[in-house]
Amino acid sequence: MIFAVIMAGGSGTRMGGELPKQFLPLCGKPVVIYTLEKFLKCGKIDEYYIGINPGWKELMEELIAEHVPDSAKKIHIVCGGGDRNATLYNVIKAIEADFGVSKEHYIITHDAVRPFVTQQMIEENIELVKISGAVDTVVPAKDTIIESEDGATVSAIPDRKRMYQSQTPQSFNLSLLKETYLSLSEDEKAVLTDACRICVMRNIPVTLAKGSDMNIKITTPGDLIIAQAIAEEA
Amino acid sequence: MIFAVIMAGGSGTRMGGELPKQFLPLCGKPVVIYTLEKFLKCGKIDEYYIGINPGWKELMEELIAEHVPDSAKKIHIVCGGGDRNATLYNVIKAIEADFGVSKEHYIITHDAVRPFVTQQMIEENIELVKISGAVDTVVPAKDTIIESEDGATVSAIPDRKRMYQSQTPQSFNLSLLKETYLSLSEDEKAVLTDACRICVMRNIPVTLAKGSDMNIKITTPGDLIIAQAIAEEA
Repeated sequence: MIFAVIMAGGSGTRMGGELPKQFLPLCGKPVVIYTLEKFLKCGKIDEYYIGINPGWKELMEELIAEHVPDSAKKIHIVCGGGDRNATLYNVIKAIEADFGVSKEHYIITHDAVRPFVTQQMIEENIELVKISGAVDTVVPAKDTIIESEDGATVSAIPDRKRMYQSQTPQSFNLSLLKETYLSLSEDEKAVLTDACRICVMRNIPVTLAKGSDMNIKITTPGDLIIAQAIAEEA
Repeated sequence: MIFAVIMAGGSGTRMGGELPKQFLPLCGKPVVIYTLEKFLKCGKIDEYYIGINPGWKELMEELIAEHVPDSAKKIHIVCGGGDRNATLYNVIKAIEADFGVSKEHYIITHDAVRPFVTQQMIEENIELVKISGAVDTVVPAKDTIIESEDGATVSAIPDRKRMYQSQTPQSFNLSLLKETYLSLSEDEKAVLTDACRICVMRNIPVTLAKGSDMNIKITTPGDLIIAQAIAEEA
């Protein structure tokens, strides 16, 4: 089965307001709903999971009932753990509790605050994850990337042609990701905040899907202004 | 003396239209003028150079006469070489022809297509370049950066805390940059398309100035939509 996993665990402190950024309005609907609808449209996804901070579970249920009532039965809300990977692990446990353990379960994980994911990205993730087990959606680095050890001077400038910016979706064979996550020590869990990084650390090949410069992550008030401009153009 | 160098050499083929992107309108004026005005406002800059493709020299002269006639005497247009560094070298030669050779000449180079440079960035560049001789304006990498050797799978995920995206201004002691550029072989010149990279390759320390996520580079039609949104908000 194919599961979409919308990562909406952010508590939103960086935006300064009270509402986490995934609940702020974008073209008249909350960002998380805007994002969720992209996955609902796909047609190749069986069930939908939303990883969320317990404090916002009730609001999320209300938003689903208000905006996408016809799909509500297929949308499952799971309360998050202490960090992104812990939240993802809670979702994995919920999926296995609901639909059983299988080597043929795949999860397409996506940031709730990246509302401009396209059908092409979602479909490429689904195709590639069935072949390779782990997929990261990336764009070639637009700016030159520099490395600084001390934050004050340039330490190195890696070859730009090899550098990519990682976005989401990130997709995984569910069993593979679970086994890999469970193999981590507590120290490793504290450091490996990105699921693709877990795979790379364990020498599991991660295949690249094609992202887009428009697939921005809304993390600051300025991003929301930019997102509004993109949404109105779309 | 302090020289602003606006790098406007792009021929603009990536945008699809006929006009290079630095001439497209942003809030009613060409992007290059929008950018130039930021430097004209600074008050700490002595002279202004614009590096440009020979085919657009006449248009650039017209735009200066139309939009910033009072500053026209301090603005010098220099035709570009084959690539970014060759253009920069032409500007260096023009500065030395116009104002003599000096160890106390500093250039603040900036992309014409980054119109949202701030006074703070320009001033920090001026302060730092007098101390260190080479400055790059950067922001901490927002997305996770991944490295891929083959463009198909992830090769490595460097520690995100050490990764920065390089923007402009990039600022240099003029003599230092000239000597370093002249020390390059033709093969090195072909590869080292970024002036900061030249310094790093020759073990010259490059100091970091603080950029901004808003300091975007307009390279695609989508970027222009985003730029319009930022400009209207500003």
